[in-house]
Amino acid sequence: MSREIKLIQSIIEKLPIREDTVVGAGDDCAVIDTPGDMQLLFKTDAIVEGIHFTGDHPPEKVGYKALARALSDVAAMGGSPNSAVITIGLPRDYDEAWVMGFYQGLNQLAQTFGVAVVGGETVCSPDRIFCSVALTGNVSRGKAVRRSTARVRDAVFVTGELGGSIDGKHLDFVPRIKEAAWLVKHFDVHAMIDLSDGLAGDIQHICRSSGVGAELWGAYLPVSRAAKLRARKGDTAKPAVAAAMTDGEDFELLFCVDPAEAVSLKDKWRQVFPDTPISCIGKIIEQPEVLFKDQNGIRPLRWHGYDHFQ
Amino acid sequence: MSREIKLIQSIIEKLPIREDTVVGAGDDCAVIDTPGDMQLLFKTDAIVEGIHFTGDHPPEKVGYKALARALSDVAAMGGSPNSAVITIGLPRDYDEAWVMGFYQGLNQLAQTFGVAVVGGETVCSPDRIFCSVALTGNVSRGKAVRRSTARVRDAVFVTGELGGSIDGKHLDFVPRIKEAAWLVKHFDVHAMIDLSDGLAGDIQHICRSSGVGAELWGAYLPVSRAAKLRARKGDTAKPAVAAAMTDGEDFELLFCVDPAEAVSLKDKWRQVFPDTPISCIGKIIEQPEVLFKDQNGIRPLRWHGYDHFQ
Repeated sequence: MSREIKLIQSIIEKLPIREDTVVGAGDDCAVIDTPGDMQLLFKTDAIVEGIHFTGDHPPEKVGYKALARALSDVAAMGGSPNSAVITIGLPRDYDEAWVMGFYQGLNQLAQTFGVAVVGGETVCSPDRIFCSVALTGNVSRGKAVRRSTARVRDAVFVTGELGGSIDGKHLDFVPRIKEAAWLVKHFDVHAMIDLSDGLAGDIQHICRSSGVGAELWGAYLPVSRAAKLRARKGDTAKPAVAAAMTDGEDFELLFCVDPAEAVSLKDKWRQVFPDTPISCIGKIIEQPEVLFKDQNGIRPLRWHGYDHFQ
Repeated sequence: MSREIKLIQSIIEKLPIREDTVVGAGDDCAVIDTPGDMQLLFKTDAIVEGIHFTGDHPPEKVGYKALARALSDVAAMGGSPNSAVITIGLPRDYDEAWVMGFYQGLNQLAQTFGVAVVGGETVCSPDRIFCSVALTGNVSRGKAVRRSTARVRDAVFVTGELGGSIDGKHLDFVPRIKEAAWLVKHFDVHAMIDLSDGLAGDIQHICRSSGVGAELWGAYLPVSRAAKLRARKGDTAKPAVAAAMTDGEDFELLFCVDPAEAVSLKDKWRQVFPDTPISCIGKIIEQPEVLFKDQNGIRPLRWHGYDHFQ
């Protein structure tokens, strides 16, 4: 377990909760009970200049990304987004055109997904820009899909293609809100997470919180064209499969369903989302570890997800 | 109007809203409609190392302050707080003891006010620590107290004492949740704001959004002991009254009620909150400017509130 994960776990254990806290910290979103038929989703996420974006990226794409990341978390709970508040940290000599561009990209995405932007806090951040987005969402009572409810023998699916997001996708991915809503409407999704730290790390989140393990199949990994091109160029020591397993910011859905539903799910998905690949990449196992199977045999996964502090 | 305020206004004008957006950006909290009897309050706020706190401050107090600021905004709407999510930006070589101390202070305050802490995002911030807190709250339908509803002839009140917060209060003030709840329960509060940028700036927020002006009376300003001590020491060019008018981070409530309620309010307040001063410091006027009256006569207010980028 990385130092970061240990720290986060010891923080989470001590956080105060209330009677209306249905799901607290440690999942893609919190779930809060309300008097109506719906429950409230609540999430915060942040991007930092030099880490998640640079001064070379167009501000419209940076604003887009800031909100898209949080939307991806609402998708991973099977919910629909509602309202966002934005904290932006700017240097003293901030460029107004940059800020307006940032909000233009963010607002456009908000409108696409019917999100209201209901508040903003602007603070001084002398060295680098940061932006924290908090987002509420709604989900039918008891229907939020957690990370902790994967079952042994479940089929493990992933949407889209993995790896090489750094070449552009991290700035213009479409959060899988529609796909997730369709999935939870038509199938009994046992567990779901969005891929932000890389498949190798995020499957561990599902396994650890569900008390299970997983076997992933290298041959079925949907490796992105970007990851293949990078590997071919030889400017990185990472084979394409390793990139698909460990690159961060894919923002695809990783989810588990009963194996009896697997074929039907694939068939129906292709009709509804013909342009978005769906891949069954493994299964949930009882033994609490992640195994990786390829032409060289089966062995414990040796890759890790993205560590925010390395 | 400062550059910051102009920028914020031009951002706010373009933010997308929804049908359920009762109050969008530009007030202390957003108000979102829900199916039940209550409406949802939503707020984000942030603190940055070197701006709102330093490495010399105990982490417990920094965590306390991070949440207390957002609680103060929920108070200013007359609401009760519900759940918080925390984004914290930490350097690569972060000190675990600092982080645990930060959360200890934050959690303790959360428990005092019955707030659940339901999520946290930890990101890398290489140069300095920052923390953004997003908070939800509840308020009875239609009962949120806005900034924009002050009426001509209203009495202007302020809780507590003003100025010199930098000497310690900014790290351990008690957000006026209870006081605000009592006020809105027993009186028809026309407009309210929490003092974060200084009275001179925050009264402008009420006046501008209500389309009114105000006359403030220097002789009735509750100048804090800290502000008086600072002025006496002569290590600052700021007279104590100027400090009370312009120092940031007082986190007191500034509010407007019908003048017919003013005496009754003062009387009842003193019975319920004997240790907390309450002062009638002026009145709302028709002419859209802020006037300041003292022994030298009456004139347009020449002080400004805290500018985040100066």
